Amino acid sequence: MNAHAWAEVLQIDDGFRLDDVDPDSTPGYRGRKADGVHDLKKGIEELSVLQERLFAESRVGVAKDAVLLVLQAMDSAGKGGIVRHVVGGVDPQGVALTAFKAPTQEELEHDFLWRVAKRLPEPGFIGVFDRSHYEDVLIGRVRELAPAAEIERRYGAINDFEADAAASGIRILKVMLHISPEEQKSRLMERLERPDKHWKYNPGDVDERLLWDDYMAAYQTVFDRTSTPAAPWHVVPANHKWYARLAVQELLLAALQGIDPQWPTADFDVDAEKKRLAAS
Amino acid sequence: MNAHAWAEVLQIDDGFRLDDVDPDSTPGYRGRKADGVHDLKKGIEELSVLQERLFAESRVGVAKDAVLLVLQAMDSAGKGGIVRHVVGGVDPQGVALTAFKAPTQEELEHDFLWRVAKRLPEPGFIGVFDRSHYEDVLIGRVRELAPAAEIERRYGAINDFEADAAASGIRILKVMLHISPEEQKSRLMERLERPDKHWKYNPGDVDERLLWDDYMAAYQTVFDRTSTPAAPWHVVPANHKWYARLAVQELLLAALQGIDPQWPTADFDVDAEKKRLAAS
Repeated sequence: MNAHAWAEVLQIDDGFRLDDVDPDSTPGYRGRKADGVHDLKKGIEELSVLQERLFAESRVGVAKDAVLLVLQAMDSAGKGGIVRHVVGGVDPQGVALTAFKAPTQEELEHDFLWRVAKRLPEPGFIGVFDRSHYEDVLIGRVRELAPAAEIERRYGAINDFEADAAASGIRILKVMLHISPEEQKSRLMERLERPDKHWKYNPGDVDERLLWDDYMAAYQTVFDRTSTPAAPWHVVPANHKWYARLAVQELLLAALQGIDPQWPTADFDVDAEKKRLAAS
Repeated sequence: MNAHAWAEVLQIDDGFRLDDVDPDSTPGYRGRKADGVHDLKKGIEELSVLQERLFAESRVGVAKDAVLLVLQAMDSAGKGGIVRHVVGGVDPQGVALTAFKAPTQEELEHDFLWRVAKRLPEPGFIGVFDRSHYEDVLIGRVRELAPAAEIERRYGAINDFEADAAASGIRILKVMLHISPEEQKSRLMERLERPDKHWKYNPGDVDERLLWDDYMAAYQTVFDRTSTPAAPWHVVPANHKWYARLAVQELLLAALQGIDPQWPTADFDVDAEKKRLAAS
């Protein structure tokens, strides 16, 4: 299956129900783990070439395109692994990664999109949001961090914001990594069992876990309200880490293939420069 | 040779003369290219583990250490390759890369260190400057972009700035990649001969190349005036790309080994959390 066809399989449709997705499934891919690991390595090369071309176009000022990968998920679903093993495969010079934490006091004094707008990728870059403005309608909703009317307002504000970003040349790729609560329990338990993983564990993770159904309902509302043609959502089953990484890589490939960046042609006289250089 | 001994070989001494460095040499390393490529791969693993520990310490708030790699060089000396093949080997989550361009109007309205201070790495991060505040005493001096008295002032200002940064916990590692003018000519010619490399070529590169001796003199002054115990300079012969990458990796390893980050111990009751998680 090519990257575009795969992207379509993972892109959610009208009437999409998160409940219907099996976190153990591997939609669009018939291979098993060993195949997936092999294909991930192969895909990195293609991704790297496309990324370099995108970067090159922007360096000489002929491109306005960028890609923005938005990653959302419950704790331990594998966002970090995507960043390391997929995004980490391309040249760091062309990547703009932002890990959004709980907002600072200064950030809280502005609209929730203020800090996000500042981190949109410039032309030529692959921007990656590890968490994002969606936290403001996920934990924001579940934990009632803002009045209900404000939460309601945010869905529309997000759609307007993303439509503007898309119009400016940013291909927005929104991904929810979907794990089962059983898989999360096993991953969190591993963090507790390994002293070198204790730093990744936070007692608050269990508090959020106890609200699993509320979070899934908040995600469903996000999908219902903010999956737009300009910025569609993709739900990636993520109980198999190898599959999730491969799938996100394919989504990035499809986005870059859609842009189809080309090596820029020289805006100088190549032969004249060769002579000048030879004489120098 | 271990990383510390190697770092000492590359760190410049009192009385250091750039003229005495052979850009073709491979100080501290007896192997050849195939060995170097192999050792680079091996070193990435050690670097990754140390980097993850550094990052882990900061995530739980027990560390104040960071590393800052400052890369300076003539065009085509291989800064980009260092970023891609050395820095690119560690988890992007722990890297803060800044490529400094010609200053914007807003940046010009501030002191030359204003934009640099904002990009110092936070605890837990490896910061990388691809070009830096040293441009302000390199091209700044050669092209007389500021009055002579202001250029003079900057050396002291840099030392004070870097001493403060070091005191706050940032290990500063300053590296000049040193190529010969003949090697640069050959690399620039390759960029002209390959259409997929044209975007990396800029006619201005030849203009700067014609001022080679002036640049070398400006670098010598930088070394004389700004190599301090808190922020020493290292000159890495860079005609062999494989050597330069390996050497910078060793410098990073030495810096991280000096910090000696440890997996943080849990600040929660592990057994109690296991029970709470099991019951969830």
